[in-house]
This record gives sequence, structure tokens and C-alpha cells, in this order.
Amino acid sequence: MILVTNDDGIVAPGIKALVEVAREFGEVLVVAPDSPQSGQGHAITLTKPLKIRKVDAFVGITSYECSGTPVDCVKLAKNVLLKNQTIDLCVSGINHGSNAAINIIYSGTMSAAMEASVENIPSIGFSLLDFSFEADFEAAKVYVRKIIQACLDNKMGACKLLNVNIPAVPLSEIRGVKVCRQGDGTWVEEFQEGTDPRGEKYYWLTGKFVSYESPENEENDIWALKNNFVSVVPSGHDLTHYAGLPSFKHLESI
Amino acid sequence: MILVTNDDGIVAPGIKALVEVAREFGEVLVVAPDSPQSGQGHAITLTKPLKIRKVDAFVGITSYECSGTPVDCVKLAKNVLLKNQTIDLCVSGINHGSNAAINIIYSGTMSAAMEASVENIPSIGFSLLDFSFEADFEAAKVYVRKIIQACLDNKMGACKLLNVNIPAVPLSEIRGVKVCRQGDGTWVEEFQEGTDPRGEKYYWLTGKFVSYESPENEENDIWALKNNFVSVVPSGHDLTHYAGLPSFKHLESI
Repeated sequence: MILVTNDDGIVAPGIKALVEVAREFGEVLVVAPDSPQSGQGHAITLTKPLKIRKVDAFVGITSYECSGTPVDCVKLAKNVLLKNQTIDLCVSGINHGSNAAINIIYSGTMSAAMEASVENIPSIGFSLLDFSFEADFEAAKVYVRKIIQACLDNKMGACKLLNVNIPAVPLSEIRGVKVCRQGDGTWVEEFQEGTDPRGEKYYWLTGKFVSYESPENEENDIWALKNNFVSVVPSGHDLTHYAGLPSFKHLESI
Repeated sequence: MILVTNDDGIVAPGIKALVEVAREFGEVLVVAPDSPQSGQGHAITLTKPLKIRKVDAFVGITSYECSGTPVDCVKLAKNVLLKNQTIDLCVSGINHGSNAAINIIYSGTMSAAMEASVENIPSIGFSLLDFSFEADFEAAKVYVRKIIQACLDNKMGACKLLNVNIPAVPLSEIRGVKVCRQGDGTWVEEFQEGTDPRGEKYYWLTGKFVSYESPENEENDIWALKNNFVSVVPSGHDLTHYAGLPSFKHLESI
């Protein structure tokens, strides 16, 4: 069984493209949010109940929309809808917009995939570097297919999560795949300020991404995407800063 | 300047306890959610504007409540309220309930602290292992004070984020501090099913945490807390699974 989810919502073109590829590999179940959930990160719904509804979203594919977050979708799929079935693979996306570098922590798409990987389910999040709902997913689909095939053929070992980002260029311009680490960078100039119709000030999140990586350093996803490679970052959920750990040992004697 | 935030909301007893300690170390600004935001993870608000409102929440402390998530609070503090000021330290919490082990990825408290650390601000998330609003924070405050003092005295180096969890026992029973890695485990039996007043089925997130760690292995926060130590996990935001990276290099030839 292949579980498909996303964060842009069940009607987004990106999940349609992903379902079209995923169904080539076996039985597919779609459980996706009933509304856009971009930027939801690893949010879960604790203070209210969740609803799921069977919908006719993709011809011949069992599909549910869910009132919760992307992570809720995966939890419901695993614990309720597929309680007694093995999920061979979870794929999330194709996200409209990059989830490279630090974006992985804000991304509902990647958090859904990560949630599956926490449950030991091999899992891949796919993102195309084009925010538009009119984005062309044809080149992306070629690489989604190749990567799913390779992961099913070779199995995924101890690392159960891939963060795959695809440059928004024609297929002929994609130079291949780069397996690399998460690039370092952050967002700056983050708010648009304005006044609402009642005269109250508001702040609306915006900003631009700034890379901290040297342009010559090839071993990260920022470089890969800038140079028209598909970036693949094997990812995890152990947030321990191992290199920094010894420098805090002094806290044991406070 | 010390920035204080949380995910339980600005009226939670835990943030009151944290403010009481933080103010001993210098000027404090509080920016916290105007409603409970537990389980919001690293969610950010993209699709609507944010509001902030100055409130008289703590005597003599400038405080704002924010309509967004814990991460939104930190972004607004840094980019709007403290635009031209250095934030020496961000402290988040004291959370009502554990954020040890895998809980760090679901936690709004820890995500707020992580957001500050992404911005290179030394940052500490504090949690007490007691969900109750009647929780006793007195013992916790002793360790919050010691840890803030030690971090200000020694500076934090390359690692800018600590995940601190405190057992819910009297001070005399706390055996000290353990600096360790994030324990491995997951949540099981996750939904309570029911029928709502309109006859529709609902699913409400619940569950219990299961540790994957051997009870003898002392080098993780699950062990530390079970054995009445305060756990300190130096943490980061690079999710690359470095050990797994080589095993996916074959994807470069697809």
C-alpha cells in the first residue's frame, strides 16, 4: 500500500501529479487535508476532534479528505484507515514551492513524510520550486517516478525519509540528482505591515530566503537546486546537536 | 534583552514561573500566544495577517499577546518589536508537559525556541512533566535559574538550542542534570473515536508514548527523566541523516 498526502490540500495540482505516478507502483490510498496547510510544520490537532470524509478526488483511487493538518492525515491513515495493513511507502507532495534547506522545518509536506518515517514507514516528500497552481509538473513526474522506483528496488535502510526538491525547469535542463545535506540559511525581512479596515495594525508573514552557504560548496541542497539538480536530502527526526553536546557537560555540575 | 515565549498561552502558570526567573537576569520582553498552541510544532501563519496587543500580564514587564503560533511570536519579536535590539537569550515555556524525546518535533514550546536558534539567538525551551494548570513550578524554577545562569556565564557556542525537561517531583528528589541525546520512541494507540451530536464520526488525538530505548541506556532524555534527572538535550535544526547519506548515493545515477 502506498499512502499519498500533501499540505496544499486534496485539490492541489501537485497531489494529482503525485497520485498519477504513485498508482503505477501499486495500490494507493490518499488522505490529504481538506484545505491548504502550507507552513503547518509538524502541527497536530489536540484541542478538537478530526473528521475524515471519503471523496471522489482521483478516478479509481480511494481518497479521504481530513479536517486536520498534514501530520494528522498520516496519523489517521496509519491508526484508523490502514490499521491492519502495511504501508510500504508514504509519499507527500508534490509541494508547490521549495522545501529545501531550513524550509523542511516549516513544511507540512515534509512533516507529513517525517511523521510516517517516525512510524518506520519509508517516506519521501517531493517539492517543485514553483509556487503557482499552474505549475508544470511533467518534468517533476519523471524524477518522482525514478526516485520511487529506486527506493522500492533498493529499500530504504535505517534512514526512512528523503527530502526531494525539483528545480522548475524543463526536463532537458535538469542535470540529474544530487544526494546531499540540508543547506544552511534563513529567512529575512519577514513582515508586511498594514492597517486593517478597523484601523488596527497587522503583520503578514513574507520575506526572502538567504543562503549561508558558499556558492562553491556543492554538498548541499541550495547549491544543487541553483545548479539545476534534483536535490535529495536523507533526513531524520533526531534533533540532538551531537557536535555541541560535550560543550554543555558543565551543566551536570550546576 | 531576554525574550520569553511559550505555547500554552500568555495566561498559563508556566510562563509566569519563567518570567519570574528570567527577570532576575535582565530586561525581559514577553511575546506569547493569546490562546493555547500546544502541538503546533513549527507552524507559521501564512494565509492571514497577525495581530499583536500590548497586555498587562506581568507586573513591570512589557508583554504582548499574539494571534499566531509560538514561532510567529518569535518572528514578530525579532523582526518587529525588537528590530534594532540584540536578543541575548530566548527562553520558552515552562511547558505544561514533557517535550522530551520525539515530542520536540510536535512542541510549540520547543519550536519557538528553535526558531530563535535559527536566528542565531541562544535559546532554551523548558518543560515540566506535569500537564496540570495546577502544576507546582517551584522545583522547576530552581533548575531554570541555574541553567539560565550557566548559559549566560559560559555562553552557548555553535549549538544555540537546549531542550530542558524537568521531572515533576519535589526539589529534594531531583538528582541533578543529565546532558544527553534525544531518546528514541513514538506514540501508539492514537485516536479516541466517537460520534458527534449530528451523528458524524470523529477522531480525537490521544495515545501513549512508548520508548524504544533500553532501560539501562543512560545516554538519553527518557532515561534521565525516568531516573529523576533534569534532562538537557543540545539540539539543532539540521535534519540531514548523515549516517544514511551514503546509502542513497545510488540515486545520483538514476
